[in-house]
Amino acid sequence: MTTPSGPQPADFADVRATNLAVVLRDVRAHAPCSRADIAARTGLNKATVSSLVAELIDRRLVRETGITEHRIGRPATMLVLDGSRFAAIGLEIGVDQVTVVALDLAGVELVSWRRARPTGAATGPATGAATGRTTGAATKSSTGVAMGDPAGTPVGSPAGTGTTRRGGTAPTGSARPSSTAVAGLVGRAVARVAALDRQVLALTAGVPGPVDAAGNVPVLADLRRGLRDAPYAINVDSSANLAVSAEHRAGEHAGTANLVYVSGDARVSAGLIVDGHLLRGARGFTGQLGNLDGLDERASIPAIVRAVLPDAEDDGPISDYAPELDRVVVAAKNGDSAAIATAGRHLGRGLAALADLIDPEVILLGGGYARLAEWLVPAAAEALDSAGLRAGRRGPLLNISSLGPNAAALGGAMRALADVEGGRLPATAAVGAR
Amino acid sequence: MTTPSGPQPADFADVRATNLAVVLRDVRAHAPCSRADIAARTGLNKATVSSLVAELIDRRLVRETGITEHRIGRPATMLVLDGSRFAAIGLEIGVDQVTVVALDLAGVELVSWRRARPTGAATGPATGAATGRTTGAATKSSTGVAMGDPAGTPVGSPAGTGTTRRGGTAPTGSARPSSTAVAGLVGRAVARVAALDRQVLALTAGVPGPVDAAGNVPVLADLRRGLRDAPYAINVDSSANLAVSAEHRAGEHAGTANLVYVSGDARVSAGLIVDGHLLRGARGFTGQLGNLDGLDERASIPAIVRAVLPDAEDDGPISDYAPELDRVVVAAKNGDSAAIATAGRHLGRGLAALADLIDPEVILLGGGYARLAEWLVPAAAEALDSAGLRAGRRGPLLNISSLGPNAAALGGAMRALADVEGGRLPATAAVGAR
Repeated sequence: MTTPSGPQPADFADVRATNLAVVLRDVRAHAPCSRADIAARTGLNKATVSSLVAELIDRRLVRETGITEHRIGRPATMLVLDGSRFAAIGLEIGVDQVTVVALDLAGVELVSWRRARPTGAATGPATGAATGRTTGAATKSSTGVAMGDPAGTPVGSPAGTGTTRRGGTAPTGSARPSSTAVAGLVGRAVARVAALDRQVLALTAGVPGPVDAAGNVPVLADLRRGLRDAPYAINVDSSANLAVSAEHRAGEHAGTANLVYVSGDARVSAGLIVDGHLLRGARGFTGQLGNLDGLDERASIPAIVRAVLPDAEDDGPISDYAPELDRVVVAAKNGDSAAIATAGRHLGRGLAALADLIDPEVILLGGGYARLAEWLVPAAAEALDSAGLRAGRRGPLLNISSLGPNAAALGGAMRALADVEGGRLPATAAVGAR
Repeated sequence: MTTPSGPQPADFADVRATNLAVVLRDVRAHAPCSRADIAARTGLNKATVSSLVAELIDRRLVRETGITEHRIGRPATMLVLDGSRFAAIGLEIGVDQVTVVALDLAGVELVSWRRARPTGAATGPATGAATGRTTGAATKSSTGVAMGDPAGTPVGSPAGTGTTRRGGTAPTGSARPSSTAVAGLVGRAVARVAALDRQVLALTAGVPGPVDAAGNVPVLADLRRGLRDAPYAINVDSSANLAVSAEHRAGEHAGTANLVYVSGDARVSAGLIVDGHLLRGARGFTGQLGNLDGLDERASIPAIVRAVLPDAEDDGPISDYAPELDRVVVAAKNGDSAAIATAGRHLGRGLAALADLIDPEVILLGGGYARLAEWLVPAAAEALDSAGLRAGRRGPLLNISSLGPNAAALGGAMRALADVEGGRLPATAAVGAR
């Protein structure tokens, strides 16, 4: 009818695409629900809803799930998201570990693996907490694959995935998992998804630090090379951006329009959602908190490690802080937590300056901060609250990330799900009559 | 056809409203232009464009402006925005002055008045600079009403507006213009607009400091009381938010998606546009920069006045800094500018922390900072740039607001224009055939 260009005029094809996405989002939010429920909530008339649902069923995005009688009036056929056809893959390439997850369209975890560096011994409890978690709002069961050996040696080598990819062995000695190892792990996840008869929608990887608009080209090039001829889109963003997106979609504070996720790692960085939008900025370089009250110097994980363990760098600079973080936790449990509290007060003051700028409702702490929560959060919250009181208003709520160490990888997978719900329905070979 | 509720489904009435707005924005951006030009740029077909233009002409939002022959092909009837029917009013209620402007739909200034406190003597040059300015992108001439006496005594009492409102005398002695005086000035502007046969679309007022989501109720209540039974919407926002909106729409850096406007007044506050959106936050309390590198203590206008004029507060706390700012300018011209440069370095460091967070492309300085630009900006830019260099990237561009002291009031008036172009077309008694 028209060929959109320049500003976005609407046409009738747009109307249908928009309404397909409206119905899909409504099913996600309210499943199981009937066609009449959808019509009532969206304001679309019932004939339109029936036609849209028929197309979504054809595309295997929605499915019927039997008839309910627990309602007034006629029994109705109930609808839920159909997770059976597609999967989205999320990846976090951290300094000392790689995490890969796969979600189906309904948010059920199909894969959840982490590969730590051999020297790392820090993934035990965190791994256990994340295993088999269901992150979709609409589903009740998980077919999640349990993570590997939780004892600390390389995790994430699931038995029997049937993959033929090479490079699946754990990297040793390098400061960061090699791109071969990353691609190997992703390849296994893709094979697992294929074995479950799912088509991969997209892969999004999180990396530390800000990612420019071009998507951090070296990492992206590595991934594309490692996953050559992948028939799905491969994207890269900062881990903090992906983590805050995951919390916004599926965390304890899901739907909070003004939400911050602060990651305490080598540097203090944040993903910022304001007024419901993830902030990207001119070049993608948002969320660098290091110069707020000197946070990188005073409250990053390396700064805390140096303060608690003055001998930590006797053997040279540290590239993997996981073992030292374990020692810091042990020291704190034995009563040596004053340095953590001091870092927490700096963190609280820095977050107060952040709150003055973008006025968040909730600030979540993730990364290394989550392990130090017991000693860090009370001091940080007190500093944050007293800054708010000085300004004559209540400060934002400070909390620990509810999605745990998988948050960024989950956020990567959720990107593709959000794209579908935003109206970019996956191409399909078998769309029936509309 | 449908009754939208909950998520926003599209329907065919939406399509038409959306496309009316698309055509209106296209005419604003490209006037004078032909129907064929609009069709080519928007992708809408020519019959649709003709129908939409007919409705916009009926609604007196667009008008024909003769035939051009300076083109290849047939001569075409050219279209421009029709400014003749509507006007929007913007107001800034500052600490020491009140500014009111009225713009027609094409962005032409119909009214531009400022009322200073009698002790103020600082509005001369700034007033002159803003007089008769055309802020619309599509028009070539201005019917702007010249501002009052530029010599410094109370300005803004235009002769012959025919208003019958009371309360138009200048306030004396109070720390802030009284609400009666504000309403009186606005009343005269409304009368002036009525005399020009324009209908007021809306009034938006800017006030110092953050404005909560409810719109700073006391000021709003004052205005509504003073302008009782006003048949148009009255809104309040922070001056910094309105100023950055004006710069984004019509300033030298119009269209910059990541733009900051920093106002140096009693406190250092900013309007923040990121990814094309004005940041509002959980309660509307964004843009408070005072705790970045201690800016309120070190780089606000009061801080600069105290540093340059140690005797300034000998007679008690200052509520109106305009006369002192004049003395600071005189001192700087005589070579005493070191304290301004010191404040500038702090400002630059604070803005670097801001840039780390939201990654702006351009930062504009307004309010009192504009008068100190000659001495302040070089030092601030150097500090900002060297912070960027340390981080391995180019810092944002630092510049002085191009819209001058009227920026916030212009932004207030532009709110209503943006609403119209966003698709909220004004109700009209005489819409013809569609």
